Amino acid sequence: MLNYRVDDLSDDALAREREVQGGLAASTRALIDAVIRSTVDDEEILEIRAQVDELTARLTKSQIAGPFGVSVTPGGTVRGHGNAVVGLRNAIAPPLAIRRDPAGRAEADFTLGAAYEGPPGMVHGGVTALLLDQLCGEAAAAGGSPGMTGTLSLRYLRPTPLGEVSGEAWIDRTEGIKTTVKGKLETSDGVTVECEGVFILPRWAREAMARDAAASPPPSFE
Amino acid sequence: MLNYRVDDLSDDALAREREVQGGLAASTRALIDAVIRSTVDDEEILEIRAQVDELTARLTKSQIAGPFGVSVTPGGTVRGHGNAVVGLRNAIAPPLAIRRDPAGRAEADFTLGAAYEGPPGMVHGGVTALLLDQLCGEAAAAGGSPGMTGTLSLRYLRPTPLGEVSGEAWIDRTEGIKTTVKGKLETSDGVTVECEGVFILPRWAREAMARDAAASPPPSFE
Repeated sequence: MLNYRVDDLSDDALAREREVQGGLAASTRALIDAVIRSTVDDEEILEIRAQVDELTARLTKSQIAGPFGVSVTPGGTVRGHGNAVVGLRNAIAPPLAIRRDPAGRAEADFTLGAAYEGPPGMVHGGVTALLLDQLCGEAAAAGGSPGMTGTLSLRYLRPTPLGEVSGEAWIDRTEGIKTTVKGKLETSDGVTVECEGVFILPRWAREAMARDAAASPPPSFE
Repeated sequence: MLNYRVDDLSDDALAREREVQGGLAASTRALIDAVIRSTVDDEEILEIRAQVDELTARLTKSQIAGPFGVSVTPGGTVRGHGNAVVGLRNAIAPPLAIRRDPAGRAEADFTLGAAYEGPPGMVHGGVTALLLDQLCGEAAAAGGSPGMTGTLSLRYLRPTPLGEVSGEAWIDRTEGIKTTVKGKLETSDGVTVECEGVFILPRWAREAMARDAAASPPPSFE
């Protein structure tokens, strides 16, 4: 069910991918923001749309058959570039640059713009859940207990304004294949959302990982 | 704290906005997918990136100062076009076309592509939380009890494969300003995620709504 490709990429190739494909995704993030906020006239929007369609046609001349998936290099570099939260090539992802601590902790500082809005001027409550899910999964993995989300409970203390946000998650306890992780988001005004999640490595995932001896366990299944 | 603009737009203007600005967002969604999956060579990617930057520059020649926010027309049409789940102009949003039932129910059928990936080939667990949060908020609002998320608890029964997904949410019970909503996502293989959320209309939101007599209560604060 899980399927990690093995891609034998050199350090140079990985760096170039970060610059070239990562750069295109970064530019696409700026485009997403502009599409939401632009007030240029309709004729101009129609022309721009036609050009976006042309660029898409050029990109799709050659492409992988399905979603990006997750690939690992023989050296152990994990490329989850399609991931909706941390994916290098995914313009939907802010993307979070997560700092990990082998003690079972994950942290990130990031800026959320117009594309993450829910209530006027505020981060969508579901977006905060999305980011916390990833942070919790990465904390579990950093601590040596990678897993998929089993349960996730969120408590919203106050709205999170769009802008600079910090997130962190840490392993609270581990019992066999079940890891309980806690997390929170905060802004300069204090904590806005708290969560607790249980991350589990299901049997099919353990079996898939055992089958694929070439692949190191990925840092997160999120 | 909440701030709803009032925009006096005719039905014709609303229809044209749906076609023109909505069309540009739809094309941008296709671009996001192509950016993740393209295997064209680096020179071509660099050229395409430069053109994306040019289009962004054209769009930002004239734009609103901050995020889109939520606007209402005097006729009561709510325009949450920046919303991360349902926003017409937000390329991050699938977007969900939510059917509402005044009995306090919200449903949507949608397709999730490469941009919503978490584990290989599967919907990111946090994306399912994002979509369910919106559906639950809309169910509460449809039933006459709009609110912001107070708590949200998710139970993951099995991974959700990328592709066609259906979601629904319904009011379980209402006590004063607290509305408890249940929801689920399912694919052709059955239910993948269940949730329960408590939605609350906080005092500052009630006061803001009372102050702005021109604005109808929006259908959702998500």
